[in-house]
Formats: sequence, structure tokens, C-alpha cells
Amino acid sequence: MSIRDMLEAHPQPISGDLAVRVRCIEQCSECAVTCTSCADADLGEHDVQELVRCIGLCLDCADVCDATRRIVTRVTSADAAAVRATVEACVAACRASRAECERHAAHHEHCRVCAEVCRSCEEACADFLASIA
Amino acid sequence: MSIRDMLEAHPQPISGDLAVRVRCIEQCSECAVTCTSCADADLGEHDVQELVRCIGLCLDCADVCDATRRIVTRVTSADAAAVRATVEACVAACRASRAECERHAAHHEHCRVCAEVCRSCEEACADFLASIA
Amino acid sequence: MSIRDMLEAHPQPISGDLAVRVRCIEQCSECAVTCTSCADADLGEHDVQELVRCIGLCLDCADVCDATRRIVTRVTSADAAAVRATVEACVAACRASRAECERHAAHHEHCRVCAEVCRSCEEACADFLASIA
Amino acid sequence: MSIRDMLEAHPQPISGDLAVRVRCIEQCSECAVTCTSCADADLGEHDVQELVRCIGLCLDCADVCDATRRIVTRVTSADAAAVRATVEACVAACRASRAECERHAAHHEHCRVCAEVCRSCEEACADFLASIA
Repeated sequence: MSIRDMLEAHPQPISGDLAVRVRCIEQCSECAVTCTSCADADLGEHDVQELVRCIGLCLDCADVCDATRRIVTRVTSADAAAVRATVEACVAACRASRAECERHAAHHEHCRVCAEVCRSCEEACADFLASIA
Repeated sequence: MSIRDMLEAHPQPISGDLAVRVRCIEQCSECAVTCTSCADADLGEHDVQELVRCIGLCLDCADVCDATRRIVTRVTSADAAAVRATVEACVAACRASRAECERHAAHHEHCRVCAEVCRSCEEACADFLASIA
Repeated sequence: MSIRDMLEAHPQPISGDLAVRVRCIEQCSECAVTCTSCADADLGEHDVQELVRCIGLCLDCADVCDATRRIVTRVTSADAAAVRATVEACVAACRASRAECERHAAHHEHCRVCAEVCRSCEEACADFLASIA
Repeated sequence: MSIRDMLEAHPQPISGDLAVRVRCIEQCSECAVTCTSCADADLGEHDVQELVRCIGLCLDCADVCDATRRIVTRVTSADAAAVRATVEACVAACRASRAECERHAAHHEHCRVCAEVCRSCEEACADFLASIA
């Protein structure tokens, strides 16, 4: 992704470790796409009734990841408390959809992949929070 | 808005006070529109250089409000911790953009209106958090 | 909604009829909330398998309505071709989810309400397109 | 990105060429991030007044790319007309922000990178439209 190039070309100083911020943005982006796709794949399964909770939590996670990605990308005039609270919400949303996807990972490959991506995003967000502490 | 009708027609039980949830959804919706418009109005002002922080915080607030509106609207399979953390992020984002808009309220009517709407959203989110405690 | 106040306080001239633009923004906002809620209510129904198409089209409609609402709200530096194409996409998305919701309107009150809201949004978008022609 | 793995694990048949769809989703994702960052970098520049149009068009482009990414990702119950109109809107939005970024590319590296990413997204969307014709 080009987000590293973009942030290196940014005219303002950027707080924290740049690589950690870049990874947070990339993982939020990846997780939003993956959760959108997992919810849609669930809808296409024969046992959709068993996957209702997975669909709802993946939709929530995609929405929180997309907002987090945008907030962490903007550095010119960030509010530290709002950034922190948003990334904490992302950790919580990833944890919830990861836990549910793990329950279906043995039967549905898309849930197995999604659980992995949620875990990576959760870690990247936690690392970002530590880097701006 | 029709969200009250929608939630009254919802097949699943909905936790907390329905009116408080409806107000939270409506205010997040209103605040997202208003903050999007305030950032755009700032861009059209002659003193845009003075409004850079207002633009950034209003864009952040709009993104968090939109995610929060969707998460609070979905009730079938919510994760309590993720819902709570998201609404807390919304309170923080509204507070930040409200404080900055208030600084420009005397000179820019759109900032005055936006500060008021942010305050209402902040309160509606805080009330919702209290109702699901 | 305060969007009329915001646009009346906007420093730049706004093309087309203001009331028509305001209605377009309000209906996109309403339709995004309603479609998000309808997809979630579908997930809570016993016959969710019958509602899979409704869920997918309502999720799509909510996403296109949210993007359209933001694009129509921003007036300082709009690109006419991009605005037009986006609002046309919104008309198509509303039409698709409205047609599917109508099929379930007799059995599910939330689909009946959602079909009505989609129709209003479709009309508000078409009126907006006519006003900027 | 894991979107190829997700779509290969999808239970439903997917219309068109999978590699073309994957590239469209990846480029929309990349372009949304890049445009969000470019608008923010513009806000941090000393000549922000000269970049107002760039900010507005990049914000619009990010919103349309995010909606398009989600619509193209969902394949279980897509409406062909709505998908087509949305991707066409994305082409128009990318074209508008690319043209404006090109005007500033010589002075601002972030605009140069953003113009390139917008062009790639425009092409990926056009290829996707051709693949589903």
C-alpha cells in the first residue's frame, strides 16, 4: 500500500512510530474488507441461520475498522482522546468478531481467514495504542 | 425519522430504553451530516487557514458518528463491550469537534450550529451509555 | 434536521434549488438508517433464509446512501459529473432494495416501512438530479 | 490482501473474472486510504487556500471508493444495475480527484502519489465494468 509514502510526504510531524501507524491503517483496511466479505459469504451458506451472530458482528467490525482507519490516517489536527477511544473501540469490535468467527472456522474457510485477519488488526491497534501512550 | 417504527417492528427484544436508543441514532445521524457540512463550509471561508483544526476534527467526528449510528442501530447480535467502546469514542469525538467549533461560533454561524449539534449528540450518547449500563 | 440551517450559513453559492438539495440529503440519511435496520431485523427473523437477498440489497443501499449524502452535502468544490453519477447510483440502489422489500412487505412490517423510505429517497434523488440538470 | 482468499472460499458462484474483481476491491481500498491522507496532508500545507478544491474532491473520492469497495465485495445478492452505476460513479470520482491532484503534483509529493493511485483505481474500475458487461 502507498500509505507509507503518503505519510512520509506529509508536511506535519507525526506522533509515535510511523511503521506502527502504517501497520494499524493497513490492518484496519484489510479487516474492513475481510469482515464485509465474511458477512456476505455467511449469507450465501446453507446454514445461514447458524451464522446470524457472525454476520452482525462482522458488519459492526467493518464499520468500526473503516472509521478507525480514517481517524488514524488523519494526523494534521487529531484529538488524542478521540483517537485513543476510537482505536480502543476497534480492538473491542475485532475481538468480538474474531471470537465468533473462530467458532465457525472448522466448517467455513472464510471464517477461518476472517478470524486471523481480525486478530492481526486487534494486535496492530493494540500496538498503535501503546505507541501513542 | 422512521427509526422508531423500524425498531418497534424488530423481531428481537431490544436492550435498554427504546426512546434513548432512538435518540442516540437520530443524533448520530444529524451530527454526521452537520459535521460533514461544517468541514465543507470551513473550506469555503476566506480564513480557511484558521479553520484547519475545525475541518480535521469535524471530519473525524462525522466518521465516528456514522459508525456509531450503524452499531447502535443493529440489535440482533450486538457485542456489549464493542457497542460501549464505540459509543464512548463517539462522545470523545463530539466533545473535540464541539470545543473547536465553539471557538469559531461568534464568527461563523455554521460553527455555532455545529457546536450545538455536537453537544446534543454527546448528551444522547452519554444517555445511551447510562441506559445500557 | 439542521442541514438547512447549515447550508443557509454556507459561505459559497450553492447550485440548484436549496430545498431540493436539503430533501435529498435528509432522505439519503433516513434511507441509510432504515436499510441498516431492515437488514438487521431480517437477521432476527425466523425465515432469515428467505430474506438473504433483502439483507444484501439493504446493506448495499445503506452504503451508497451514506456516500451520496456526503457528496451532496459538500458544495465548496463539487465535480458535476461525479455528483451526478453518485446520485444516479443511489437511485439504482434504492430501486433494488425497494423492489425486494416490497416482496416481503405483507409479512414483515420493517420491510414495508423500508420499501416506503427507499421510494422516498429514490424520488428525492431523482428530483435533485433534475434540479442540477 | 486476503480478499482473494475470501472470494475463493465464498460459497456462491461469482460473476465475471475473479482477478479483475479482486483488483477492483484492492484499488478502491487503496484509493480511499490515499485520498483520505491526501486531503489531510493538504490541510497541513502552508498554501492550504490553493488546495481547497483538492481537499473537497479527495474527500468525495474516498467516500465513493469506500462504498464501491463494499458493493463489489458483496456477491451473494447483487443487483447488476446498482453495482454498475456505483462503479461508474467511482470512475467519475477518481477522475475528478486525479485531475486536481495532477495540478499540484509538481509541488506536493502526496498529490503526485495520490494522482497515480486514483488513476490505478479508475482503470481497475473500468476493467471491472468491462468484465461484467
